[in-house]
Amino acid sequence: MRLRGRKGIRENLEQQEDLVVLDPGQYRGKWASLFGNDLPIHVEFGMGKGQFISQMSYKHQQVNFIGVDMYDELIRRASEKGRNVWAQEGVDTPPNLKLALFNIESVEKVFEPGEIERLYLNFSDPWPKSKHARRRLTHPRFLDKYSQILNDRGEIHFKTDSVTLFEFSLNSFADYGLQMTNISLDLHREGLNEEHVMTEYETKFVGQGMQIHRCEAIVGKEALDAYRKNRLEKYGK
Amino acid sequence: MRLRGRKGIRENLEQQEDLVVLDPGQYRGKWASLFGNDLPIHVEFGMGKGQFISQMSYKHQQVNFIGVDMYDELIRRASEKGRNVWAQEGVDTPPNLKLALFNIESVEKVFEPGEIERLYLNFSDPWPKSKHARRRLTHPRFLDKYSQILNDRGEIHFKTDSVTLFEFSLNSFADYGLQMTNISLDLHREGLNEEHVMTEYETKFVGQGMQIHRCEAIVGKEALDAYRKNRLEKYGK
Ligand SMILES: C[S@@+](CC[C@H](N)C(=O)[O-])C[C@H]1O[C@@H](n2cnc3c(N)ncnc32)[C@H](O)[C@@H]1O
Ligand SMILES: C[S@@+](CC[C@H](N)C(=O)[O-])C[C@H]1O[C@@H](n2cnc3c(N)ncnc32)[C@H](O)[C@@H]1O
Repeated sequence: MRLRGRKGIRENLEQQEDLVVLDPGQYRGKWASLFGNDLPIHVEFGMGKGQFISQMSYKHQQVNFIGVDMYDELIRRASEKGRNVWAQEGVDTPPNLKLALFNIESVEKVFEPGEIERLYLNFSDPWPKSKHARRRLTHPRFLDKYSQILNDRGEIHFKTDSVTLFEFSLNSFADYGLQMTNISLDLHREGLNEEHVMTEYETKFVGQGMQIHRCEAIVGKEALDAYRKNRLEKYGK
Repeated sequence: MRLRGRKGIRENLEQQEDLVVLDPGQYRGKWASLFGNDLPIHVEFGMGKGQFISQMSYKHQQVNFIGVDMYDELIRRASEKGRNVWAQEGVDTPPNLKLALFNIESVEKVFEPGEIERLYLNFSDPWPKSKHARRRLTHPRFLDKYSQILNDRGEIHFKTDSVTLFEFSLNSFADYGLQMTNISLDLHREGLNEEHVMTEYETKFVGQGMQIHRCEAIVGKEALDAYRKNRLEKYGK
């Protein structure tokens, strides 16, 4: 019988120490040792029910993934999803996945400078009212935090259905001085790509025929150098 | 009686030496003396029938404007429009407006480095097939040309209805390394602004309820410094 109350959910999470991190601040600077290796760490901020991070962890086993949300119930659902995806390999504990409960406002208390290589922001809450602009996860005050924790190869990968959040974010990345690349105003224009990992929101919105917007922002010096080497090649001679 | 044939149009243009420049190469490095002053020069590449450049010249009399197209007939129609707009002031020759006939491919033969302060690209032909990408006026090979002729305060102001051209252009500006600012995915979201000068295409597309996309790309060093001083101010504390 599944326990339904808040207390039940918390107990459930406490029993999943192999996957769920309820006090992530204690691993600040120590995530590599928690994973037991030095693979790059990719994080999704606001993972919701965890479809994206679960499938990514399964598809890219040479990367460590951390899914972040601030609600117990979403961490619980993501833990089910993560275990289910890996169950097809007969694995009970996904080796390269952790689900961390915290508010992104305090991200600097959870990650040390340079501890993260890639940040996924998928369908972040749009906060459409301008008086709430500061809560948008692509606001410059968040970009400040992200720039701290990302390493020399650091990148931010952002996708959303919201035209207004996307517009805000393009300006925020540009004004903050980040190099943007691979900007798409309709990610699925050429049809669905088998390799592409969808989030729950994405699945829903694409099903409704909505357009998905995407872009990458390059943060790390090394990533920037690599990008600059062939940034114009795709345009031909 | 209006002359209709090509020859008739050419004769008409030849009689408008005060407004129409049929051999613009001869003014390379000498546009200021053609205007008779040192006001900044703003150019529209691909002005079509000239509604935008005519109204801009009338609204901003402390700027010199050049409307460029490669078709005699469009230069002729723009010349009518330009004179009509200024006629409301009893002026026959718009003092700060020239209409220049040339192909933008050869822009470096028409303008000296630093001769131009602002470039308007309004509803440029989208060239949707990827094999024609090189013809798009925001292709990096054109950005190369524009960067030459723009001065220290130089900026490119681009608007279009085409989602695919806009997407291409955002990437091209980004990959070319230009600082973007004031990106809008729906220029008229908050309704029509009285001050905003519309082009013929814009009037038509807005009437059809289509969304207009816009962005600026900063080219000149001085413009970049000015921008950087308060680029984050709009986001508040
Ligand atoms: C709109 S949902 C998107 C979920 C998922 N990424 C997807 O695409 O399906 C946004 C998620 O971000 C989480 N979230 C929003 N603000 C957060 C914050 N400050 N800290 C942690 N999680 C947050 C919410 O709880 C929610 O699960
Ligand atoms: C789609 S129309 C837009 C006209 C006007 N800017 C507007 O918004 O209504 C594009 C214009 O660019 C002109 N054009 C396209 N390529 C050009 C080139 N290489 N040199 C000069 N003019 C060009 C075309 O002749 C046409 O008038």
